[in-house]
Amino acid sequence: MGKKLTKRAEDYSKWYNELVVKADLAENSGVRGCMVIKPYGFAIWEKMQAELDRMFKETGHQNAYFPLFVPKSLFEAEEKNAEGFAKECAVVTHYRLKNDPDKEGKLMVDPEAKLEEELVVRPTSEAIIWNTYKNWIQSYRDLPILINQWANVVRWEMRTRLFLRTAEFLWQEGHTAHATKDEAIAETVQMNDIYAEFVENFMAVPVIKGVKSESERFAGAEDTYCIEALMQDGKALQAGTSHFLGQNFAKAFDVKFANKEGKQDYVWATSWGVSTRLMGALIMTHSDDNGLILPPNLAPIQVAIVPIYKGEEQLDAISERIAPLVKELRAKGISVKYDNRDTHKPGFKFNEYELKGVPVRLAIGQRDMENGTFEVARRDTLEKETVAEADVVAKIEELLEDIQKNMYKKALDYRESHITEVNDFEEFKEVLEAKGGFLSAHWDGTAETEEKIKELTKATIRCIPMDAKEEAGQCVFSGKPSNRRVLFAKAY
Amino acid sequence: MGKKLTKRAEDYSKWYNELVVKADLAENSGVRGCMVIKPYGFAIWEKMQAELDRMFKETGHQNAYFPLFVPKSLFEAEEKNAEGFAKECAVVTHYRLKNDPDKEGKLMVDPEAKLEEELVVRPTSEAIIWNTYKNWIQSYRDLPILINQWANVVRWEMRTRLFLRTAEFLWQEGHTAHATKDEAIAETVQMNDIYAEFVENFMAVPVIKGVKSESERFAGAEDTYCIEALMQDGKALQAGTSHFLGQNFAKAFDVKFANKEGKQDYVWATSWGVSTRLMGALIMTHSDDNGLILPPNLAPIQVAIVPIYKGEEQLDAISERIAPLVKELRAKGISVKYDNRDTHKPGFKFNEYELKGVPVRLAIGQRDMENGTFEVARRDTLEKETVAEADVVAKIEELLEDIQKNMYKKALDYRESHITEVNDFEEFKEVLEAKGGFLSAHWDGTAETEEKIKELTKATIRCIPMDAKEEAGQCVFSGKPSNRRVLFAKAY
Repeated sequence: MGKKLTKRAEDYSKWYNELVVKADLAENSGVRGCMVIKPYGFAIWEKMQAELDRMFKETGHQNAYFPLFVPKSLFEAEEKNAEGFAKECAVVTHYRLKNDPDKEGKLMVDPEAKLEEELVVRPTSEAIIWNTYKNWIQSYRDLPILINQWANVVRWEMRTRLFLRTAEFLWQEGHTAHATKDEAIAETVQMNDIYAEFVENFMAVPVIKGVKSESERFAGAEDTYCIEALMQDGKALQAGTSHFLGQNFAKAFDVKFANKEGKQDYVWATSWGVSTRLMGALIMTHSDDNGLILPPNLAPIQVAIVPIYKGEEQLDAISERIAPLVKELRAKGISVKYDNRDTHKPGFKFNEYELKGVPVRLAIGQRDMENGTFEVARRDTLEKETVAEADVVAKIEELLEDIQKNMYKKALDYRESHITEVNDFEEFKEVLEAKGGFLSAHWDGTAETEEKIKELTKATIRCIPMDAKEEAGQCVFSGKPSNRRVLFAKAY
Repeated sequence: MGKKLTKRAEDYSKWYNELVVKADLAENSGVRGCMVIKPYGFAIWEKMQAELDRMFKETGHQNAYFPLFVPKSLFEAEEKNAEGFAKECAVVTHYRLKNDPDKEGKLMVDPEAKLEEELVVRPTSEAIIWNTYKNWIQSYRDLPILINQWANVVRWEMRTRLFLRTAEFLWQEGHTAHATKDEAIAETVQMNDIYAEFVENFMAVPVIKGVKSESERFAGAEDTYCIEALMQDGKALQAGTSHFLGQNFAKAFDVKFANKEGKQDYVWATSWGVSTRLMGALIMTHSDDNGLILPPNLAPIQVAIVPIYKGEEQLDAISERIAPLVKELRAKGISVKYDNRDTHKPGFKFNEYELKGVPVRLAIGQRDMENGTFEVARRDTLEKETVAEADVVAKIEELLEDIQKNMYKKALDYRESHITEVNDFEEFKEVLEAKGGFLSAHWDGTAETEEKIKELTKATIRCIPMDAKEEAGQCVFSGKPSNRRVLFAKAY
C-alpha cells in the first residue's frame, strides 16, 4: 500500500488528494483537469446513482438523453446563462483530422473541416433541452414534462481537484416544464428535499437546506435552492442545487402553451442536479487518518472477511467454515468479500480494507476456529470484539445499522458545534479564522456587502436557511438593518 | 397520433424514420447528426443496459469512467487506430467564449483561449485507457484488468439516421488487459458470446457469430469478432463487435509487465462494444406497418389496460375491479399501465399501444364487467380473445413468454430463409437484387476481390461464420480456390 497517508491535522488538502488516489477512487488523467474514476470509486457512484434514480422515478420523472453539443447560437439564447458559462466552455471548431504532409504523417486539425457554427460542449443542458421542449409543448395537456438525464458535462476550470472540481464531471440534471409558477416552485423544493433526504440517509452527511443569495444563484435562475454540508476542516460544500428558472428559458426559446382557458402563456421551468462532487463530500465528511470511512448504505463491500492461516490445509478449513456465512449474508442482501488471496498477508489486507473504508471486517484464525468465534471490527470507531459464530450474522446486521447512524450523528455533532452566531465583523473574522464552520450573521441583503465580505475574508453566503426565523438585527458588516440571519462560510 | 405510418413495402427507410419518431423513441436535435433519445426510447435502452451490465458483472467485469477528451498526441499513438478514426473526429481547439465587441455582445470563440494541444472528442477510448493502464500494470499480479465503461462517443458521420448512425451515440466499451494471448482471445470470444446471448434472449433477434475480414476489422485490431443480424428488408446489421487487439496498444503505449518468470512482456488486450444502434436492430427486426413490436423482456410497459366506459360511475366500477389485478401483476414483476386518462378515447389508446409495441393489451367494457371477462390482445400476431377473470393472470404470463419465443422464431425463420448459397457471380447479383439477405459464397481471401464485389454490388463480407465448415470451392468472383464459404450482404 505504500507509505502512510498524510495526517489531516498536518495538511488537510494533501490528505484528501492522497486518500482519493490510494483508496482507488480516482486519479488524474493525461487530459488536463479530467479525472479517471477507478472501479472502486465508480462502484460507490453507481450506488448513489441507483438510489437517486429510484427516488426520481418514484416522484414521476423519466430519463432521456440530449446531445453533448450545443450550437453556439442556441447556447447564447438565454443571455445570463450564456454569460455565466462562457468562460468555462470547451468549444469544438473542426470535425476532421488529416495526416500533415509537412510533419511526417502526424495528424493535424484539417483546416478545411471547419464547422460553420462552433459547438459548445455542454456545461449544462438548459439551452439544448428547451430548444427541444419547444416542439413538445403546445397545450397544458403536454405538461408537466418531468425529465432527468445522467450525463457528462464540461466546465473548463483552471484549478481542478479530484471529484471537487474537474473539467469533465458526471452528474444528473433534471429539467422540468410546468403550466404554473406554483407547480414549478413546488417541484424545485421537492427535488431539493429529495437531495437532502438522499445525502442524509445514504451518505450520512447532514445538510442545511436553503436558498442562495442573488450573487450565488445559477446563471439564468430566479431562485436557487441548495443543500450545504460542512467538511471536517470547517469549510462548506454545496452538495446539490435545485433551480426555479421562472419563464426565462421559455422566453429565450419561445416556448408557449395554450392553458385551460385557451390563452397562450410561457412555460415555467426548473432544473436540478447533483454530481460526482458528492464523492468529495462523502470522503471529506467521514474519513480519518487511516483512510476512507464509508456509510454501509453506499459501501460496495459492506463486510470483508480475512482468514489468518498457515498453510493450505488451515485455509481450506477456514474457507469451509466461511462458506455458509457468506451465503447467509448475501441472501440478506449484504455484500461480502471473502479475501482468500494467498499473495498478500492478513496485515496488508487489514490495512487495505481500513484504507478503503469497508464498514465491517471479520477475521478468523486458528484460535477462532477452536473457539467457534470471529473477530469483528467496525471501521468507524475501530472497535473490535470477539463474537460467537451463532451470533455473528445478527451482530453484523446490528453493526451495519449502527455504523450508518453513528456516522450521521458524528457528522451532525460536528456541524452543530460549528455553527456560530456572530454579531460584529471582528467576531466574524476571529471565528472564521479560529474555528471555521458556518457563521450565522445578519446581512443587509446587498450584493456589495456580500462582495466586500468575500474580498476581505474569502467567506461567502452559503445560503439563507429555509428555517431561518425572523429576527431584527444589524448587518455584520454595514450595520444596516436586517431581519434574519444567513449562513456564511469558506467553501469548496 | 397523426396519420398512419408509411408501409414497409412502399418505402422501408421512410417507414423506419417515421416509426422512430411517432413511437416516441427518438428524434433529430438542433445539432447536426445528434439525436434526442426520448423517455420511451430511453426506457428500452435502460432495460438493455441493465441486462448487459448484469452479464458483464457476472463475468467479473467492473465499471469505471475515463475522460471524454483524448489529447491529439495520445490519439495518434496507435497509428492504424488513429487513421481509422481521423476523418470522423470532433476536435476541441478552444476553451473559452467571450462577448464580441464588434457584434453587439454576441458570443464568439475567444482566439486567446486556444488550447496548446487540441483535444479529440473520443470516438472510442482505447488510446486514453491504455495511456492509463500503463500506470496500473507492473506485474502479472495486476492482471487481468476487466473494465467496462458506459459512455457517449462521437463520430462525425456525414449521413446520419436515428439510432443506426448518429454523430453522438451511447454505448458501452469494455477494455481488458491480459498476461497471455490465449486469455485475451478467450475473453474476446466470451464477450462476443455474451452479446449473442443478450441479443437473442432479450431482443429476440437471431444473430450469426463470426469474424470480420481484414478490410472490415476494427482499426488497430488483430481480429474482430462480431454478431450479425438480418433486418426485414434483407439488409444485414452488425449488432456488436469484440476485438482481439493483440499487443498493438501495449506497444503503442509501452505497457509492459513482469510475468511469473520475471521477464518483461507486452500486455495483451481486448475491447468490445454495443451501442444505441441495437435500438435500430430491435425496431427493424420486429416491427410492422402498425408500429413497434417489442419483446416482453425489454418492453417498458408489458401490459396496458384500457377501460371502455361511459361516465365516471362506470369508470369507477372498472377501476375498482382493475386494482387487484394491477397489484397482482406488479407483484409478479410484470410492468402494467392502467390507462384511465379521460382526455383520450379507447380507440386512440389502442392505436397508441399498438404503435408503441406494448406486448399485451387488456380491454374491459360494460359487457366484460357483466360477464366477468377481459378482452386480451397480443401485439405480435394481433390476435384477440376473451378471457375469464380467474384465468387472466395466468393467460398474461403465458402470453408474455409465448410472444418472446414467437418473435424470436419468426425472425429466425425469416433469417434462415434468407441465407442463400450462391456459386457464381451472376447468381450472386441476381439473388442479392431479387431477395437480399445473406449470400453464402466462396471467396479467395483477398481484399481486392472483396473491394471489387463491394464496388459492383454494394455487398460486403459481413463475417466468416464461427461454424463455417471446411469445403473446397472456387471464389464466386475470381474463381480462385477457397476452402470455406463466407457471408456477404448489403448492410446498415
